[in-house]
Amino acid sequence: MSQTKEIPYKIYLDESELPKQWYNLRADMKKKPAPLLNPGTGKPMTLDELSVVFCRELAKQELDNDTKFIDIPEEIYQFYKMYRPAPLVRAYFLERALGTPAKIYYKFEGNNTSGSHKLNSAIAQAYYAKKQGLKGVTTETGAGQWGTALSMACAFLDMDCQVYMVKVSYEQKPFRREVMRTYGAKVTPSPSNTTNVGRKILEEFPGTGGSLGCAISEAVEAAVSQEGYRYVLGSVLNQVLLHQSVIGLEAKAALDKYGVKPDIIIGCAGGGSNLGGLIAPFMGEKLRGEADYRIIAVEPASCPSFTRGTYAYDFCDTGAVCPLAKMYTLGSTFMPSPNHAGGLRYHGMSSTLSELYDQGMMEARSVEQTSVFAAAEQFARVEGILPAPESSHAIRVAIDEALKCKETGEEKTILFGLTGTGYFDMVAYEKYNNGEMSDYIPTDEDIAKSLAKLPKVPGEN
Amino acid sequence: MSQTKEIPYKIYLDESELPKQWYNLRADMKKKPAPLLNPGTGKPMTLDELSVVFCRELAKQELDNDTKFIDIPEEIYQFYKMYRPAPLVRAYFLERALGTPAKIYYKFEGNNTSGSHKLNSAIAQAYYAKKQGLKGVTTETGAGQWGTALSMACAFLDMDCQVYMVKVSYEQKPFRREVMRTYGAKVTPSPSNTTNVGRKILEEFPGTGGSLGCAISEAVEAAVSQEGYRYVLGSVLNQVLLHQSVIGLEAKAALDKYGVKPDIIIGCAGGGSNLGGLIAPFMGEKLRGEADYRIIAVEPASCPSFTRGTYAYDFCDTGAVCPLAKMYTLGSTFMPSPNHAGGLRYHGMSSTLSELYDQGMMEARSVEQTSVFAAAEQFARVEGILPAPESSHAIRVAIDEALKCKETGEEKTILFGLTGTGYFDMVAYEKYNNGEMSDYIPTDEDIAKSLAKLPKVPGEN
Repeated sequence: MSQTKEIPYKIYLDESELPKQWYNLRADMKKKPAPLLNPGTGKPMTLDELSVVFCRELAKQELDNDTKFIDIPEEIYQFYKMYRPAPLVRAYFLERALGTPAKIYYKFEGNNTSGSHKLNSAIAQAYYAKKQGLKGVTTETGAGQWGTALSMACAFLDMDCQVYMVKVSYEQKPFRREVMRTYGAKVTPSPSNTTNVGRKILEEFPGTGGSLGCAISEAVEAAVSQEGYRYVLGSVLNQVLLHQSVIGLEAKAALDKYGVKPDIIIGCAGGGSNLGGLIAPFMGEKLRGEADYRIIAVEPASCPSFTRGTYAYDFCDTGAVCPLAKMYTLGSTFMPSPNHAGGLRYHGMSSTLSELYDQGMMEARSVEQTSVFAAAEQFARVEGILPAPESSHAIRVAIDEALKCKETGEEKTILFGLTGTGYFDMVAYEKYNNGEMSDYIPTDEDIAKSLAKLPKVPGEN
Repeated sequence: MSQTKEIPYKIYLDESELPKQWYNLRADMKKKPAPLLNPGTGKPMTLDELSVVFCRELAKQELDNDTKFIDIPEEIYQFYKMYRPAPLVRAYFLERALGTPAKIYYKFEGNNTSGSHKLNSAIAQAYYAKKQGLKGVTTETGAGQWGTALSMACAFLDMDCQVYMVKVSYEQKPFRREVMRTYGAKVTPSPSNTTNVGRKILEEFPGTGGSLGCAISEAVEAAVSQEGYRYVLGSVLNQVLLHQSVIGLEAKAALDKYGVKPDIIIGCAGGGSNLGGLIAPFMGEKLRGEADYRIIAVEPASCPSFTRGTYAYDFCDTGAVCPLAKMYTLGSTFMPSPNHAGGLRYHGMSSTLSELYDQGMMEARSVEQTSVFAAAEQFARVEGILPAPESSHAIRVAIDEALKCKETGEEKTILFGLTGTGYFDMVAYEKYNNGEMSDYIPTDEDIAKSLAKLPKVPGEN
């Protein structure tokens, strides 16, 4: 790409350039993502049905496939100013270390205490819950980024926050728990005996370290069984991708300022919220035929929903209390190996991204965790940021693509999402530092076993 | 102060506005800080003597009381761009929460993986060591911020880094250790049996959790007993304050842009590097009679060198292997209570700051740790940054001063240094969250006991 102005190491937008609207990618999709279904009737979830679990404004956003831009409420906008606009960084040092002609940029979302992009949606969800007059919200958290983000948002708005934390994370990350407690949240290891579904899972799988799917089930049950509470979710949902579009809007505005157009856009994908947010405006251009981009979703080889899953209706949670979502899934009973330390352990994938992937609008790649941590270490040493294991999946593929450019001599422009920092992931880094990290890839039988339990959609054959 | 332009939440200088020179505050002091003395002869340390321990360029900077501005070498300048300019934040949310008419600003130095301002001097010291052709450096670290910063700098320059980490921190902060290891450093808990001085201290105080003073002694011994190594120190020294002047220069440039002049400048003080850096250009104006500022050093009540120490020559380290420095000191054998969780546990204070304090150019205040963590919690909840315990000392006094303004109605402008984040300090936060934090203040006898062991300067009565 031809560039006229010299590109600084970090591009900060002015505060006045912070996007005032979220961009709803679904509005530009000709074939919309498949709707959430009521597992009892097999019919699309209605606004009223969704409003039992989610607060009403969020349920509306979940169902809205048409409104292209949605105003960011003033209170959320003010909160965003605490940590946004987030920097777009030109990875000069990484380029030099790799000796690549590629130009590498990353959008860094880790400059806030939650340590990731999750705060973008947490404040939105807490705000709408508060506006509806609710007392508090319940949620699940895996690595703890989402729980921390929600705790921060709730503390700011003076709302109650109840977090079900995947037990293995709760034990491996006591400090994450303490950050949430500092922000006033109540944190319970999941599965717990505080819910029916938790007790049932504990009976069936005694000693389990839990999973995101279990924790979601518990948090949903806690929400519907308490007056004045709703459940909120940090990824997967359409509404979350909507809020996260602020990442891509800022990234695109920063690149546009310098006349830079990426050739390849790379993001890690667990439930899909960061990737969906980062690519939103670029994918919009692609859908409208205005531009072309290679877009790559990166997932762990130990939890490969895009690359080895099936595109089908499945439960969002292990306990099967949520609506059915059509997505690339490994089956809601799939549990990644306990060896897996790198986050992104959700069994499914955002319906929006799943549909786009199915349409061939993006690629997916799975990477093994030892190579992910090697990329993390290399990045940390030259770019000065110790990345989250999740983000490091994107780093791995960004480095791989840059090294391909070194071979071919192509001066491609690569943009990737650096979703967060790894300061609470040092148990995983310690494993890597000690050479004790292993790669585990599920067998075809492992995956077939959980896919065999996919739900039957009522009314379908 | 009258302000014309609307002040954004965060003021980012442009990359081109990053200071190109450090400012040497000593050049503007009529009465210079007292020189380091050779403990054997009682005479000022010469460049040659200092060059045995420090690399030569740093030894020069240590002794240079006259050069007002020193060029930042190009390589350091490029490294600074990784995480600088650092933001100056207007604490709108904190002001609102306090209901104060005061205007509060903080210079935030935590947006880098070392989690603090320490990186500003670490890269400078590692750079000069590299330039001198050395293989590596040794150092001590307490809370781990300095050790992490030095590890990052050494990884970037491909130098060996050996860190002696105060044992109690090593045990309470295993994750800090892993960050340093990820950056390739060798980390040893101090006191250790790898040095003569370590073995001696272990004999005298078996089971001790260590102290900064002990760790310094070990690191110095390790440096002088290995070919191609020098010792580097993260605070206290003149050279370190010089490098840290980048904090104050940026803060002042950002304030000047909006025509803002602070009435009160507040910084936490352990060895004095952050405070010395933050106040440098402001103190310069004050020394030259161009402006007046109230400057407040905040220290823990459990380690009160300014407020309860003596201005005298003392050893910089417990093992008495370093030169003598004239400073406000509690005595080099002083050990803060093991209850003390809030950092800033050095027995002495920068000679430059000590001299300025003695001249009445600044005030000092000591605060108890429970109130420090209460301030930290309040700040985290409204400003979205979980602060380092060290930084929270400054937050405490900034809040106190803002609340005074609320009583008097004065619209004072307060600037404080937010030196870093508390992500690796969650053991301390957990204590606070559980209501298990206690305040311990040393008795007059405690202090008298360690002050009784102040060294006699040869040739003095």
